[in-house]
Amino acid sequence: MKLLTYKTTTSEPRLGFLHNNQVVDMEDFGESVNFPLPSDMLELIDMGLEVIPEINEFLSEIDAESLAEVSYSMDEITVLAPIPTPRKNIIGIGLNYTEHVAESARTLDTTGKLPQKPIIFSKPPTTVTATNTNILLNKKLTQQLDWEVELAVVIGKKGKYVAKEDAMDYVFGYTVINDISARDCRREGQWIVSKGQDTFAPMGPYLVTADEIGNPHNLNLSLKVNGVEKQNSNTKFLLFNINDLIEDLSTVFTIEPGDIIATGTPSGVGAGRNPQEWMWDGDVVEATVEGIGTIVNTVKEI
Amino acid sequence: MKLLTYKTTTSEPRLGFLHNNQVVDMEDFGESVNFPLPSDMLELIDMGLEVIPEINEFLSEIDAESLAEVSYSMDEITVLAPIPTPRKNIIGIGLNYTEHVAESARTLDTTGKLPQKPIIFSKPPTTVTATNTNILLNKKLTQQLDWEVELAVVIGKKGKYVAKEDAMDYVFGYTVINDISARDCRREGQWIVSKGQDTFAPMGPYLVTADEIGNPHNLNLSLKVNGVEKQNSNTKFLLFNINDLIEDLSTVFTIEPGDIIATGTPSGVGAGRNPQEWMWDGDVVEATVEGIGTIVNTVKEI
Repeated sequence: MKLLTYKTTTSEPRLGFLHNNQVVDMEDFGESVNFPLPSDMLELIDMGLEVIPEINEFLSEIDAESLAEVSYSMDEITVLAPIPTPRKNIIGIGLNYTEHVAESARTLDTTGKLPQKPIIFSKPPTTVTATNTNILLNKKLTQQLDWEVELAVVIGKKGKYVAKEDAMDYVFGYTVINDISARDCRREGQWIVSKGQDTFAPMGPYLVTADEIGNPHNLNLSLKVNGVEKQNSNTKFLLFNINDLIEDLSTVFTIEPGDIIATGTPSGVGAGRNPQEWMWDGDVVEATVEGIGTIVNTVKEI
Repeated sequence: MKLLTYKTTTSEPRLGFLHNNQVVDMEDFGESVNFPLPSDMLELIDMGLEVIPEINEFLSEIDAESLAEVSYSMDEITVLAPIPTPRKNIIGIGLNYTEHVAESARTLDTTGKLPQKPIIFSKPPTTVTATNTNILLNKKLTQQLDWEVELAVVIGKKGKYVAKEDAMDYVFGYTVINDISARDCRREGQWIVSKGQDTFAPMGPYLVTADEIGNPHNLNLSLKVNGVEKQNSNTKFLLFNINDLIEDLSTVFTIEPGDIIATGTPSGVGAGRNPQEWMWDGDVVEATVEGIGTIVNTVKEI
């Protein structure tokens, strides 16, 4: 199921899902089939992935007229980030594709050694922005605004010391994150200022539930700037795959429903190019993961 | 006003305040004076600091019997962390006292240069624990468990590009954080695994509102391990003071009500001692900031 958070011209943010190119409002749908469903993505995640087949069952039974009453066409709504306000900072993973480790060591301050354990950083909830919004460029802070397409994993249940083999039971679904990074904003090596500025986590357009993504370790991911392809890889090249990451992260801290793990970017970032390339006012960046969708954002100088 | 989150043997976590060595339940107090007040610290912060003089006014008017009906003695309740579940990761500041910069460079991987801008890192909400709870030591992750007493600032209202001169308008209050750090858990220099493990942010015992702390830049802070003093300094020695930090942080990201800034630790940490000292199962650590109180925690191996 492709879930989204959306608003109409008059509504607050609401939860919906895609069905035959229409957006079905989740709460209204639930009312029409007498099965209480929430209006907020985090509340749905708290219900657990078990609810998805139930929704699909009701969907197969509802008559077309009742469904139309709780649906919108895409041009009637605005797509927001699937989780507009995460409960904590997004968990970012650095240096998780071999060629990106190499390109980073050539031009940034990393060592070039393949990491022995996942490199973890964080992006505050205030970094989250939707498709078709602006990435804000503050030239007083950075002259090196860079892109990073990533598969993001959304956690579905609480866990600690999760074994690799059980990790997939903890995945609710997947989305796309563009892990925007201001390369000249590292401080004593820490990445949070580089990666944590407002609007530095375009996310979406959809949260696709795990049942709909067959193998998350075989998804193409790519990124274009002003229509020119800059990144193109596949999640099969992840150094630490999703199972590894969940095992490791849940050893460090308790993972919780709604946690978002941005799994790292492949090579092709601006910092790794010769000459280096950065994004400036008006540049349009499109980040795509197979089976999820594309987020499009425009850089805007403030 | 000294605010706290507490529970009784039968209650969920609730908001209270200290008055004449009694804990007054905030919501119940509000009902008894016909002035709606919340049962949760974050909801009170959302009301803004303006509500504190109003509460004090009602407090001066209420009769002793009515007050007793909504109060507990300290031995009837358990003190929880003042904000048990922060809305995002705690904002940590590294290397913010001169002598701690020096001791860190001697023994850790930092440069020893005085930072030109605040060094920022984060601690997930799952790090938060209360006074009189355990700090969990996982020897598979670390053999270098260290302490760091810090003054923590709680933000009271949303802000972006806050000028230094206006910064104090954004402060709701203060608490104590012991920024527990596993020195051998840095990954590619990133600090979040070192500082982000479950229970690595003992916090409390109280959140003291800004009106009650005269000058936050002249508070003694100290820390003892098993009764032996290890740290003793004063917030007047902060390299970046609270005004500087709020100006800088709000340039990077929007600051929001309930955000917590751990302002950095003075010298005297275990890593900086000769020979180095670490905490082990059974060790008792007490972190104190003048005017706020002391948090006491016991290390427990898991």
